[in-house]
Amino acid sequence: MVSKRCYGLGTARSVIRELFEYGNQRAQEVGPDQVFDFSIGNPSVPPPQAALDELERLIRESDPLVLHGYTSAQGDRAVRERLAASLAARFGHGYGPDDLYLTVGAAAALCCVFHGLTEAPGDEFVVFAPYFPEYKVFIEGAGATAVILPPHVPDFQIDLAALEAVITPRTKGVLINSPNNPAGVVYTPQTLRGLGELLSRKSEELGRPIYLISDEPYREIVYDGTVTPWAPDFYDDTIVCYSYSKSLSLPGERLGYVLVGPQVAGREEVYPAVAGAGRTLGYVNAPSLFQRLCAACDGLTADLSIYAENRRLLTEGLGQLGYDTSLPPAGTFYYFLPTLEADDTAFCEKAKRLDLLLVPGSGFGAPGYTRLSFCVPTQRIQRALDVFARLAKEYGR
Amino acid sequence: MVSKRCYGLGTARSVIRELFEYGNQRAQEVGPDQVFDFSIGNPSVPPPQAALDELERLIRESDPLVLHGYTSAQGDRAVRERLAASLAARFGHGYGPDDLYLTVGAAAALCCVFHGLTEAPGDEFVVFAPYFPEYKVFIEGAGATAVILPPHVPDFQIDLAALEAVITPRTKGVLINSPNNPAGVVYTPQTLRGLGELLSRKSEELGRPIYLISDEPYREIVYDGTVTPWAPDFYDDTIVCYSYSKSLSLPGERLGYVLVGPQVAGREEVYPAVAGAGRTLGYVNAPSLFQRLCAACDGLTADLSIYAENRRLLTEGLGQLGYDTSLPPAGTFYYFLPTLEADDTAFCEKAKRLDLLLVPGSGFGAPGYTRLSFCVPTQRIQRALDVFARLAKEYGR
Repeated sequence: MVSKRCYGLGTARSVIRELFEYGNQRAQEVGPDQVFDFSIGNPSVPPPQAALDELERLIRESDPLVLHGYTSAQGDRAVRERLAASLAARFGHGYGPDDLYLTVGAAAALCCVFHGLTEAPGDEFVVFAPYFPEYKVFIEGAGATAVILPPHVPDFQIDLAALEAVITPRTKGVLINSPNNPAGVVYTPQTLRGLGELLSRKSEELGRPIYLISDEPYREIVYDGTVTPWAPDFYDDTIVCYSYSKSLSLPGERLGYVLVGPQVAGREEVYPAVAGAGRTLGYVNAPSLFQRLCAACDGLTADLSIYAENRRLLTEGLGQLGYDTSLPPAGTFYYFLPTLEADDTAFCEKAKRLDLLLVPGSGFGAPGYTRLSFCVPTQRIQRALDVFARLAKEYGR
Repeated sequence: MVSKRCYGLGTARSVIRELFEYGNQRAQEVGPDQVFDFSIGNPSVPPPQAALDELERLIRESDPLVLHGYTSAQGDRAVRERLAASLAARFGHGYGPDDLYLTVGAAAALCCVFHGLTEAPGDEFVVFAPYFPEYKVFIEGAGATAVILPPHVPDFQIDLAALEAVITPRTKGVLINSPNNPAGVVYTPQTLRGLGELLSRKSEELGRPIYLISDEPYREIVYDGTVTPWAPDFYDDTIVCYSYSKSLSLPGERLGYVLVGPQVAGREEVYPAVAGAGRTLGYVNAPSLFQRLCAACDGLTADLSIYAENRRLLTEGLGQLGYDTSLPPAGTFYYFLPTLEADDTAFCEKAKRLDLLLVPGSGFGAPGYTRLSFCVPTQRIQRALDVFARLAKEYGR
């Protein structure tokens, strides 16, 4: 009686969500201090004070009919001007307001891009494991096919030969996510240069651009002086998708954008196709109050020192316990750790019996790893190290 | 290189949007007082003070990590509990939190329902003219077909015989919009009773429910003591779509819901399919701050007395000038007026030459009519009556 695909998606059990619900239940049984939940990627640091101040100011000083009113479908023009100026100041390229399409978060941005670019069933988008599982849902929802490349261990940079081998005349685009959820890796300039060269060559062979879609909600969440390279510096035909969920700790407010810069080939077709996709998916405009807020706060971040401290504690503590911490995350708030046995699901089950809630890497297309979300109170990490020690002992470490 | 359909939607000229832009341009040329724009359905009355107070209170008193954090995909549970209690108190039926799926406005609600219900290409949804033109975009976006029934003039109630004639084994649902944009009509209990009986009979014949989808963002915007009947009282298999855009004057904030009540046959399939559709369309959760706000303000409205006064002025003023005001709107803030010549586009062109901006009924599937949005400052209506008089004179009235 209903769409089989939608019904399946609506009833599918999410491993992450189930772990999280289990953790809440266990917390009631044994007390919240005895459950060590590292399942969910929900920011744990409040929004920057400047953003909270701006929210108050907007509400106090704006005409509510304007502040909460419809904006243009692509976003309020003054907002897009302000945001484009900020992006141009940060990254160059002379971005302008007509390059930006504001969206209901990065998920909407990606859906608009996949729907906008897909010409016919069978069109392909390449995705690198480990990857955020909803990518596949979004690509298939657009009627296209996700071509998943296995993880390039141990550094999780791009295996260019493997990529070249899967590019076909059906390849519409290649999706990257750097800083990466769940691997925490940031693509190096060298990786992006190689990727750009390969895509340029293959685009020339095909006689049309293969678009690089750069999903970068963790762009500013980086450590130890890492700077996330700006993907359009390495490949002209890059479409950037962004969300303020993580940088400003506003995940529930759903504000992001698609950036189709002036260098993108066929941008006079791509931008309207993205906007038209938004229209047919039922996106009328991105939420109007947070359009203003995010444009005013572009480039700011929540207090990253807390995440940095959590990362340091995990690297030191887990390393001493015999876990492999040789690749600490360069960005995001996820630690991607090799499991102490090959079967990552079995490993996470053992951890779960100790009330230590970790997500198996298999769900991200990377068996043999586990993801720890360290956007949690620092105390939880300090206390969890004892439990990690007990777990390591089970494996004779 | 891109999706033809999305590109077409992204470049299509919207008659309403073009009129609105033209009005802004003319205002700069001849002064804003000399342009009489009745094109856009953007609320002109501020949100109720209680809603603005609640917004301040939420921001002042809530933990920002919770207030702006992810909620469940279907909406925060406490929000859904509060909203379901409000709906149950207003309309009965024992609604509960698990009957509600919160959405990014009514457009998203409709898209989730059409995607969730469509099993195969060629599935049909019946729509009654005059109708909001995006309905067709949303239905076709789900891979289904919109079957448009011509307007039932002059009262715009439902012609049950005409409806029965188009119901086939492919009919998945029937969409109603009461109070109606653009006709302003509210379906009577008699209309809904007849509709319910017909759909029950046809569902029995087909051996499965034909769903009634009731899009009712104007539910509370009614005049002269009109009460919008509650569609599920007349037909069990009714899925209600709602938005707070109009009632609370918050159109830019994108908050609405789908209600799949306990009486709906197959609700254990329909609700997950709606939620799964939201997932594949890229809706993560409805904006979190306004989830709280709208649940707290459910049932409130902006000050309708201003719209009522505008409606009275138009009924009296236009009637005296020889326009047919025999069917003033029972709800909404739209006046649907028979044009003074059969060609409604020519009529609106003549009006435009007088800087009187009216939308032709043809765009809503109802030639011979024009839509006036009277969500405008009352003064504009008072001054526009002179222009309406000049227009009537051109037709010898």
